[in-house]
Amino acid sequence: MNLKDRELLQDFLDLMVAYIQNNPLENDAVVNYYNYQALEKKFDTNINTQGLSEKDLLATVEAYLQYAVRTIHPQFFGKSYGAYTVPSLMGEILSAVTNTSIATYVGAPSATVLENALIQKMAGLVGFQNGDGIFLTGGTQANLVALLCARNKVLPLVKQKGLQQNNLVFFISDQAHYSFISAANILGIGIDNLVRVPANKQGQMNVVALEQAIVTALNQGKMPFFVAATSGTTVLGAFDPIDKIAAVTSKYNLWLHVDAAYGGSFLLSDRCQSWFDGSELADSFAWDAHKLMGIPLPCSVILTKNKGVLYEGCTTCDVSKASSYIFHEYDEAAYDLGKKSLQCTRKVHVLKLWLAWKYYGDHGYGQRMDRLLELAEYAEKQIRTLHNLELVFPRISVNICFRYRSPLVTDLDSFNRRLRNHLIQQGKPFLNYSTFRDQGFLRINMINPDCCERDIDDALETIITEAKAQEESS
Amino acid sequence: MNLKDRELLQDFLDLMVAYIQNNPLENDAVVNYYNYQALEKKFDTNINTQGLSEKDLLATVEAYLQYAVRTIHPQFFGKSYGAYTVPSLMGEILSAVTNTSIATYVGAPSATVLENALIQKMAGLVGFQNGDGIFLTGGTQANLVALLCARNKVLPLVKQKGLQQNNLVFFISDQAHYSFISAANILGIGIDNLVRVPANKQGQMNVVALEQAIVTALNQGKMPFFVAATSGTTVLGAFDPIDKIAAVTSKYNLWLHVDAAYGGSFLLSDRCQSWFDGSELADSFAWDAHKLMGIPLPCSVILTKNKGVLYEGCTTCDVSKASSYIFHEYDEAAYDLGKKSLQCTRKVHVLKLWLAWKYYGDHGYGQRMDRLLELAEYAEKQIRTLHNLELVFPRISVNICFRYRSPLVTDLDSFNRRLRNHLIQQGKPFLNYSTFRDQGFLRINMINPDCCERDIDDALETIITEAKAQEESS
Repeated sequence: MNLKDRELLQDFLDLMVAYIQNNPLENDAVVNYYNYQALEKKFDTNINTQGLSEKDLLATVEAYLQYAVRTIHPQFFGKSYGAYTVPSLMGEILSAVTNTSIATYVGAPSATVLENALIQKMAGLVGFQNGDGIFLTGGTQANLVALLCARNKVLPLVKQKGLQQNNLVFFISDQAHYSFISAANILGIGIDNLVRVPANKQGQMNVVALEQAIVTALNQGKMPFFVAATSGTTVLGAFDPIDKIAAVTSKYNLWLHVDAAYGGSFLLSDRCQSWFDGSELADSFAWDAHKLMGIPLPCSVILTKNKGVLYEGCTTCDVSKASSYIFHEYDEAAYDLGKKSLQCTRKVHVLKLWLAWKYYGDHGYGQRMDRLLELAEYAEKQIRTLHNLELVFPRISVNICFRYRSPLVTDLDSFNRRLRNHLIQQGKPFLNYSTFRDQGFLRINMINPDCCERDIDDALETIITEAKAQEESS
Repeated sequence: MNLKDRELLQDFLDLMVAYIQNNPLENDAVVNYYNYQALEKKFDTNINTQGLSEKDLLATVEAYLQYAVRTIHPQFFGKSYGAYTVPSLMGEILSAVTNTSIATYVGAPSATVLENALIQKMAGLVGFQNGDGIFLTGGTQANLVALLCARNKVLPLVKQKGLQQNNLVFFISDQAHYSFISAANILGIGIDNLVRVPANKQGQMNVVALEQAIVTALNQGKMPFFVAATSGTTVLGAFDPIDKIAAVTSKYNLWLHVDAAYGGSFLLSDRCQSWFDGSELADSFAWDAHKLMGIPLPCSVILTKNKGVLYEGCTTCDVSKASSYIFHEYDEAAYDLGKKSLQCTRKVHVLKLWLAWKYYGDHGYGQRMDRLLELAEYAEKQIRTLHNLELVFPRISVNICFRYRSPLVTDLDSFNRRLRNHLIQQGKPFLNYSTFRDQGFLRINMINPDCCERDIDDALETIITEAKAQEESS
């Protein structure tokens, strides 16, 4: 590295440390929000023939920091990711600095060893004693891989011959993530062949309705093959009863997948074990560490109860010479993880989770999860007591669904939707807006254990103040 | 950030700077290679109830560095990624430090502006005047998305109804990347419905054979719909004649995709423009910046000639309430990039390319590409002159295919394969082993402009020395 590069890197790292350390400064906006056209003017989006000086490059970095959403702000409540810990950030930087691709053992030996170790650890927590798994690009890909493996198992000729006379059908709850709809498109199953089983009032899949839907499909000559339970629904944070669903999938011999992308991390809390009753009966399990474990995104795994499942579903390596440039005969070939991955080049994601988990230990992570629940409980309690705020659903895990209400507001849905946008545009608390059974509301995702009770109080007070101002101005 | 975390981060960053700065030290191994069982013992792969001290955590980081492949070593020749530049590393760290997901404008406003700007820049270089595109997880996903968009265009009912009476067939060269085989599996098309058109002696798709294959498929009642040209084949670094292939796809009304994951970066060199003749006629174009542009992986785009194509192929957002928690009605909703992505959570990849390109400018990148070609030319020339080394194919771009040969070696393929493994295990030059038309050979990918002529000479000398020793010991 030449001297100029070295100084550039050092100046940049100083900027990063200062940003993390000072974030947020007192009264910092969660985001300095501008609309698209205004924001475009804040950057010189052209790339010139000649490059920038180091100084101008660092100015570009500073501009980016100035207008980026501060996801480590304690009032960033709107998403399931955000606040990351220092050891996990270290892991992400270490992955970039070493810049290896984890397709073959020879290409990334240390990463292969660590990935296998962590997959075994996580599979064990799910209850898969002899499980398998792989790190991938997100919960969406994890759900896709699960559905692909299930499809190829029930129709073993599809990999070679393609889908013929497709009468496949699969089942999710109407609270499941939209990635399943995407997977129905990608895999050629078709969105119409995805049955969305109604959830009960608590946001859990109605298991009686599930069995009815399966029977109906069978009577229509369709081929049910896959059911996804959700552990931590996106909107309400609800947990489907895996054991009861497993009784149905077992009866009809269907693949049981658990989408625990959001809620899987609660496996680390002793208090929450019952939410996963029956997880050991699943065939596959998706878990995003970049959500509640405070890992820079993405950091996701798909876990399978049985070995060989991912290889059967995903690999196309052995059918062609096309991959012979990468997969060779050599002593460690059996450890080449790329053979059970949909990706060829695959960044090393395990490091960020590995370093964080090593540093905090199981105990530290248990405490983290319990603290998040405690904060969510506190927010729920405060909302119940505050005038003009209304809890829309009883809290289940770390999602708090509530809204502003007043006799002066007639259309509560659109008022709260506009309120959410207004708050973001003012750099105030960053919430989400969601719907359940056609009712709209604000939503807090309590994902940052560095948020404290005072931040919650401040945020709720700001929401009420801004809502009242909106009310008056409308 | 508390004081302990601050010190930990600072110590870690010092370690990273020292690693990059000192890499490689004189005579450093490219990799300290151990087999799986031996390497496992170098790490404590258990996670304990209580966590590690800061000191032990840093020791874990140091162990990782010690046993990771040094992809920035000038004798790391085996892969298409590796050496990254300081500005690109900055971009990757900036993405982790801000940790936003680029699904909606409101979630990542600055990143959305920059991604659109860079997509327009790259599309323009391909010749797409009014193009579109998106950053995704790698060339494999880019090829999948292209095939998905093409499938859904030719069979518009598939997204809803699924594949029925599938008689689809598509065409790639026998030198194309294995991601197309994977995509045939995922998309339900079936591997048997992928026709691998033979390459000519220069590794380019035989266009006459392509047309014959299409006619044959039509005569069999199949439905041809997609052809992929490759710009930069994995093994030989060959460039398919896009314009000639476009004449065929136009005649039969097929989707033309260009897989330029590897070679796309040569668009930045004035010398190489003819390699892309006809690229403006393609429907889609895949380009990995993490290969030859020195960006930490992954950094890939899919570009499309027409707007709306990605949305049509990929989106499932508007068909269901399932995504209403993320995609809302608001002023900037039209800029929500997640609606044309297969991913929900999507890390910001544009920053690493953005910062590097801004810093070096078009001119700097042109120089980079020309320097890589110059180094490849030098390596080719040296191999031609060195005794016991044999160039197996004339060099096309930055792949140099050669082997050790001597009268004493009878099975050249297996000797060279073992030689490659031996070199890696000794920490010597990291090469790949590949095959073309059943002949095996060593392969250099010249991807690091910080490699110099002396590194090449050293590497070739080492290869010969080690080969002779192997020869004697066998």
